[in-house]
Amino acid sequence: MQTIESLEDIQDIARGAVLLGTGGGGDPYIGELFLQAQLKKGRKATIIDVHSLKDDAFIVSIAGIGSPPVLLEHLVSEKLLVKLLARAESAYGRKIDALISAEIGGANSMFPLALSAISGIPVIDGDGIGRAVPHIHMTTFSIFGVKATPCVLMDESGNVVTVDTIDDHTAEEVCRVVTGALGACLFAALYPMSGKQAKDFAVLGTLLQALQIGRRIRQARVESTNVFAALLDYLNAGERFATILFEGKIVDVSHETRGGWHIGRAILARAIDSTDRFVIEIKNEFTIARLNGRTVAIVPDLICVLDAESGEPLTGEMLHYGQRVRVLGYSAPPLLRGSQCLQVIGPRMFGFDEDFVPLEELAQRQAGE
Amino acid sequence: MQTIESLEDIQDIARGAVLLGTGGGGDPYIGELFLQAQLKKGRKATIIDVHSLKDDAFIVSIAGIGSPPVLLEHLVSEKLLVKLLARAESAYGRKIDALISAEIGGANSMFPLALSAISGIPVIDGDGIGRAVPHIHMTTFSIFGVKATPCVLMDESGNVVTVDTIDDHTAEEVCRVVTGALGACLFAALYPMSGKQAKDFAVLGTLLQALQIGRRIRQARVESTNVFAALLDYLNAGERFATILFEGKIVDVSHETRGGWHIGRAILARAIDSTDRFVIEIKNEFTIARLNGRTVAIVPDLICVLDAESGEPLTGEMLHYGQRVRVLGYSAPPLLRGSQCLQVIGPRMFGFDEDFVPLEELAQRQAGE
Repeated sequence: MQTIESLEDIQDIARGAVLLGTGGGGDPYIGELFLQAQLKKGRKATIIDVHSLKDDAFIVSIAGIGSPPVLLEHLVSEKLLVKLLARAESAYGRKIDALISAEIGGANSMFPLALSAISGIPVIDGDGIGRAVPHIHMTTFSIFGVKATPCVLMDESGNVVTVDTIDDHTAEEVCRVVTGALGACLFAALYPMSGKQAKDFAVLGTLLQALQIGRRIRQARVESTNVFAALLDYLNAGERFATILFEGKIVDVSHETRGGWHIGRAILARAIDSTDRFVIEIKNEFTIARLNGRTVAIVPDLICVLDAESGEPLTGEMLHYGQRVRVLGYSAPPLLRGSQCLQVIGPRMFGFDEDFVPLEELAQRQAGE
Repeated sequence: MQTIESLEDIQDIARGAVLLGTGGGGDPYIGELFLQAQLKKGRKATIIDVHSLKDDAFIVSIAGIGSPPVLLEHLVSEKLLVKLLARAESAYGRKIDALISAEIGGANSMFPLALSAISGIPVIDGDGIGRAVPHIHMTTFSIFGVKATPCVLMDESGNVVTVDTIDDHTAEEVCRVVTGALGACLFAALYPMSGKQAKDFAVLGTLLQALQIGRRIRQARVESTNVFAALLDYLNAGERFATILFEGKIVDVSHETRGGWHIGRAILARAIDSTDRFVIEIKNEFTIARLNGRTVAIVPDLICVLDAESGEPLTGEMLHYGQRVRVLGYSAPPLLRGSQCLQVIGPRMFGFDEDFVPLEELAQRQAGE
């Protein structure tokens, strides 16, 4: 068990969550502020290992739903989270033993911690995807049979909608239109599951991983050492692979909110006289990165854009013309690269006419030429 | 108490409900078929006087929600209604003592009767508006403070969405988008209320009125007497006013499904060489009738279009080019003409830049010229 009681810890998790959010999941800044306010009241968020829970424990995800730029404009209130918890326990007819992030990426890493600080309910070190994804049915929970519904949606005004659909594709459709009707910013309790299911289907360790990522970035800055070297050291220490894909300046970027999605494209160049073009497509998350038309990283592998100087991870909507950035490729958790997951979160589900090729293989191909 | 046990009774109610539906509310034919199937199983629907219920009885409306042309394409199943009842009782945490139509017009007169035949729960002789209306917040229930929510929405596939909003405008928004996401045809349990509230705020007597209207039309046909004379006799017998506004041929008609609404306009002429033009605007219901640009009937008064030969009441989507029709004006129930109701269902709420003028006054003006 680990308690989060320092502002630094919160900032570290938030920063790490933006990196793992691979451009999506929203800016955790609001959640961060809110969590800081809780700490100032002497409250603490608790992170636990899923294996400390019994198999029949009852676990629920807490998430913000909406277009990231809109989520960013809204302050989440303590009152809302407390009411959401009460309505969820009433809808499920059970006390909630632990919370879990639906996706570690971005803002949705913060809300369970915020509710933990308020309620004392611990948060599991893990999440339902190990990154951020644009659809409810794209989590490992959903892929392996933990339905997102019954799901309780609530807005700041107190409107509550309970969704109980036959599958998570339908849940996604309904939640999306309800989010639109209620002003594009909702909070949800979803993926009710047992301790056994969380142990079997969550991507474990991601919350403390976010903390460690954020901490590495902070410490490197404090010590004036190389942020990217520190990050690559940490990310490559385990069985996963991380590499710098590109460094350059954003020479063109488009943002659009379409059908509730943040759609965009960023084009990077190494220097004014360089003809190399590095293109990143955005659908809430960074979905593919191509160097001169050749794919160098693709979903579900993580594409992370960081400020070239400070190493600050950036979300899709933070990208702007003239920014100097480094693009990091980070292999997805092994579970996500299996065929069952690729059928749901592989490149073709994002409209790309190509199969998933692991980042490390793409890097080798590039190097071999 | 009255039991509905003959096919003729069902057909009479359905026919009367189309007239009271003032063009909207959908074709009750599907509900009629379904109710007939229930009778063949030896089941009966029961209609009761609201005053036979205790003040603390628990009453719920059962309604189809969706675009009328789409509703028409879907068969309502016994399984769906039984599941809806179970989910509603579970959501409200109470046994339902009686059902009531949200609107008497069209299909929504049939579904409570169908569920009554299945479940044995009686249906109150009355409804929440005495006609059909295009919005959830336009019923007398809603106008006088009986919220439509918590409301349970269900589709044929078994998707269930529970809506609990802070007001019925928001409920309308949410229900509409959910209906769209789930295929434009849902069934709902809504307007949970007490016996006292039903006594105070329902438009009473409308279910048996629909039966009587249908019966008058049928009997006149059987006896080869004048359908319209019989209808006017019946409708003018009480304190309300009915008159034939126009007889002619439909020379132009448009239908469109836009934003979930059936939007249209019918233009009538007396004869080929006549320059008189009688125009009816449709927004799910017939909302205004104008003769050569002068208003002759306007919401919430009822505008009813009937086949000129058979006297069969027609819904908006049944109107087609070349049809010979008679247009009947029928004053709204007195409750609807009060200022509290006119603020919600008056002409300005339908986008007309004119105030409500009672049908009988418009007729006098016309006659005085």
